[in-house]
Amino acid sequence: MKPNIYDPQCPTRTVLDRIGDKWTVLVVLTLLDGPERFSRLRTRIGGVAPKVLTQTLRSLERDGIVTRKAFAEVPPRVEYDLTPLGRSLEEPIRSIAAWSESHMPRITRARTAYDRRADG
Amino acid sequence: MKPNIYDPQCPTRTVLDRIGDKWTVLVVLTLLDGPERFSRLRTRIGGVAPKVLTQTLRSLERDGIVTRKAFAEVPPRVEYDLTPLGRSLEEPIRSIAAWSESHMPRITRARTAYDRRADG
Repeated sequence: MKPNIYDPQCPTRTVLDRIGDKWTVLVVLTLLDGPERFSRLRTRIGGVAPKVLTQTLRSLERDGIVTRKAFAEVPPRVEYDLTPLGRSLEEPIRSIAAWSESHMPRITRARTAYDRRADG
Repeated sequence: MKPNIYDPQCPTRTVLDRIGDKWTVLVVLTLLDGPERFSRLRTRIGGVAPKVLTQTLRSLERDGIVTRKAFAEVPPRVEYDLTPLGRSLEEPIRSIAAWSESHMPRITRARTAYDRRADG
């Protein structure tokens, strides 16, 4: 089957859901700097609940985007890293993040103007 | 304030939620071909519920990404189009869509392998 993003039966749709997810974008963006432990990821990604971070990492592992490596140390150390597939997300993810940061003020203004019209 | 995607207080986060949304990606992708009526959008974007399409279009209008133009005709005609801000999404959105389509088979294989390990 040829992937077709407009077709509701196409698995591309579930891929879109995954990489579109805000926490996915932030986890991949952080791991592009190198492997990281859970606690450090949690600190770097402001506002993420531990449970949500765990679920995001598990989904990314399932999708073959992130690896989880446990080191036999005391105390045990677990590191998360991007797979080559995960690294291939660099361009689209940086592109989304850069667009969000650079167009944010325009969107905030548009929202305020829209809500003012809706109230009037 | 300088936009910072890692900061939970930064409005960039809400922008990320919007452009990451699957239906947003599909609506913008479709409107990149030119203005379109609601019924045609619904046909072209397979599997979208009318209510979801209405909500997506309204949010995109609020964000200044889409315009809604009503023509005084019988029967009345309403067309949706991208604003210049919406057009600036072309690169990140095409990048996400292309990545999803080209990496979909690898992700599907990774999921199957992961689920097999989880069951075993």
